[in-house]
This record gives sequence, C-alpha cells and structure tokens, in this order.
Amino acid sequence: MEKINTTSKTQPPIYIQISQDLRNLIIKGHFQQGDQIPTEDELVMKYGVSRMTARNAVTELVNEGLVFRVHGKGAFVARAKLQRSLNKITGFHQDMLEMGLNPKARVLDFEKRLPTEKECHRLNLRKYNKVFSIKRIRYIDEIPFGYQELIVPEFQAPKLDSLNLETESLYSYLKDIDKPIKNAEQRMEAVMDAHIAEVLGTPVEIPFFFFDRTSYLVDGTPVELLHSYFRGDKFSYTVSLSN
Amino acid sequence: MEKINTTSKTQPPIYIQISQDLRNLIIKGHFQQGDQIPTEDELVMKYGVSRMTARNAVTELVNEGLVFRVHGKGAFVARAKLQRSLNKITGFHQDMLEMGLNPKARVLDFEKRLPTEKECHRLNLRKYNKVFSIKRIRYIDEIPFGYQELIVPEFQAPKLDSLNLETESLYSYLKDIDKPIKNAEQRMEAVMDAHIAEVLGTPVEIPFFFFDRTSYLVDGTPVELLHSYFRGDKFSYTVSLSN
Repeated sequence: MEKINTTSKTQPPIYIQISQDLRNLIIKGHFQQGDQIPTEDELVMKYGVSRMTARNAVTELVNEGLVFRVHGKGAFVARAKLQRSLNKITGFHQDMLEMGLNPKARVLDFEKRLPTEKECHRLNLRKYNKVFSIKRIRYIDEIPFGYQELIVPEFQAPKLDSLNLETESLYSYLKDIDKPIKNAEQRMEAVMDAHIAEVLGTPVEIPFFFFDRTSYLVDGTPVELLHSYFRGDKFSYTVSLSN
Repeated sequence: MEKINTTSKTQPPIYIQISQDLRNLIIKGHFQQGDQIPTEDELVMKYGVSRMTARNAVTELVNEGLVFRVHGKGAFVARAKLQRSLNKITGFHQDMLEMGLNPKARVLDFEKRLPTEKECHRLNLRKYNKVFSIKRIRYIDEIPFGYQELIVPEFQAPKLDSLNLETESLYSYLKDIDKPIKNAEQRMEAVMDAHIAEVLGTPVEIPFFFFDRTSYLVDGTPVELLHSYFRGDKFSYTVSLSN
C-alpha cells in the first residue's frame, strides 16, 4: 500500500483511497475468498486515520459484496469479483479507474475494412461505408480480464485510427466530437470459449460473460458494435429493476 | 405442430402461434444451430396462412436472435437460446408462457424455519421471524432449465404453504394479496457448479448464470431473496441501457 496524499484536490476522500487499496489486493489475489482483510485497528495504524475512516473504507467493500463482516472478528473476503453495473453505459477503462484499479489495454488488431453483411444490417451501413475493427485485450495491471472486438463506422469516428486505443477511450472520443452515446441494447451469454481462453492465456475451465452491445447516438443512429468476453471468475454484474 | 385455433379470443395472433411452434422446436433441439427451419412456402402450406403471416412468424424469431435469414435461401437457427429481458421483473413461469412454451416446476424442498443471520440482515427480519425456504427445479416440458432457491418471510406471504408452487407463481400471489413487487436489485455471475449440474442432471461443462435477487414492495420492504441458476446453453439475457 502506498502513502496516501491527503492534500491533492483531485484525490478521492481518504476512506475511498483505502478501500481502493484493499480492493486492489483482493482482485490481485493477495487476499482470497475467505481470507481476513486487515482489521480497522490495523488500518488506523497503517494509514494514520481515524477509526471512523477505517470503518468507512471497509463498509465500501461490504456494500459491493467483496467482503463481509463477522461480529467481533473483522472482515473477510466474500468473493474476489469486481462488481459492475449493467444500468450504466460506461467503458471498462472508466469503470476500473473509478474503482481505483489500473486498467490497461493491448491492441491485437486494428483494421479499416468493408463491413460484413451483418455489420451493414446492424449498423445501418451501405456496403461501401468502411468500418474500423479493433481487437483488444483488457488488463488490470498485468492480469488479463477480458477481450473485446469493436466495430465502428469510419464516417462516425474518422480520427479513431489516430487515437491511442491502449490508453484512450472510444466513449470519451465520441463525447469530444459531440456524438455522445445515448443508449445501448446489450445481450449477455454465459459461455465456455477455448479460443478466447487461449488468446487471454487463462484456464479453459473459466466461464466468460459474453456481451453483444449495439450503441446508439442521440438521433438513434447505431454507432458501435461491441463484442466483449469478460472473465466469470473476476466479474459480477448488477442490475436494478423496477416495475 | 398442432392445428391452430383461429377463433378463440384468448389466443395470440396466428403469426405469433406459428413463431411459438417454431421456437418450441428449436429449444427442444428438433432444429439445432445452423439448421434451416421450414421455409415460408412450407409454413403457408402447413398452416394454411398467407405468405405475409408466415413471413411475420419468422421475423419474430429473427428479432429475438433465434434465427437469421439468408437471402434467397430461407432462415437458419442462429443460437438455440431463449432470450429473456433483465429490464422486467417477471417470473420464469410467466416469461415461458408468453413465449408459448410449457413451463413446469418441481419442488425439491419446502420448509418453514428461522432465518439465518444473513437472511435477517438482507430481509430486515428479527431472529424470530420465520421464513419459507423453497427449492425448485424449473423445466420446459421435461427438460431441466434451472434451479431456484426462494426465501420469503412468513408474515409477508402467510398462505404460501398452501399454494401449489409447481403450477402457481409467488409473484401472482403477492399481487393477489395487494403486495405487488415494485423493484428489485439483482446480481449476476457466470459460474460452473458441479452440485447444481448434478441436481439438474445436466453435463458438468455447461456454465450457469447465477442470479442473486432481492425484491422490494412499494414501501421499500424487502420481500424476497431469490437465488437462481439458469443454464448458459439455454438462455441469453438482454438489457436496455440509457444515459
């Protein structure tokens, strides 16, 4: 755990920073399911914070289901899975940053090409409208967490090929050029996929969430097809439903 | 395929009935991924309907991603998975009926007991508030599609033990006693689970969607904990997102 900067105005509150440190240690496997995480006393000592701050840090992790408290004993890892919301249209990069993690991407393939018949249909394209097709592995630090294939019409995002897609986000770029994504339709499957496991270098017995997303601009134009595979042993997804 | 009743007022439109027949055949494995389904000409002959009606029936299945059309050739099975919406709070029984399928349930275990510490916490109960705990296998016809554990406080649904939970729905019962479910929070995981596979009698290499749902009444009282395992080879889930 690193020394926490209490002065910078861009830093989140200290209890959030402590919860980020702890989350990081859980996600990287330093603490595993069933392990006890540092007690509030230990956090008070380590970070030089009040007991209330230490308690709030742990409560953050309790609220997202990462740890549970046992009365009089402390807090233990419930499941070492990151929790993402399905109610928000956000990218992997932004979500991970907000959790205090260190997201990375490696571009496996970037091409500009003619669309397939299916892509024409789903993106409302003419046969001669070229698309960018980008394949990326998503990491947290050095650990592969997922694989994504992105299809975007060239005329919607003409400068996409000058973006550094290992560090920059399509969604931010679209916002910058006044084409923010308004809504999306997403389908999820639970799958085994030996090919994706090989690409990621993960054990074949890990199931993946497969997401098939179509994203739309304010005027209803489809602007993105996104096929994602995220590790079932690393993620869970929440959704709020109302009648 | 059975003869279609065109007179009853409770029947859906004919094109929906034809799409239900076809969906049934796909889900039961009569047509598998990549197989061609009957052509529009064949549907016209078989059901004695117009070409437009036959076309509409196939379009239903195209729209839910079950089949895709190949120009000049016909329609083929894209994936033999049922599509359910995550945006609606509906039960399995109702969803399957709406797709024209034949849902069944088998109660493995029904008990009235004191709540666990976790259940007390999540359902806002006192230690002495008893709960109903119900374990059910969900079928379509004779094929197991999922497993569910339901926890409901006795005082919220006092007659639950006189309900036939193989044919009747908790959600309908709650509506009948003026306690309709207003909203829910749901967490999803993609998991392998040898125990659940054994209970269902399904191959161990099939991944499951695991759902952990808490449902709330209009006044915010939690009324249900529902743990569900649904077969990843039989279901996909859609969600609409907006910013």
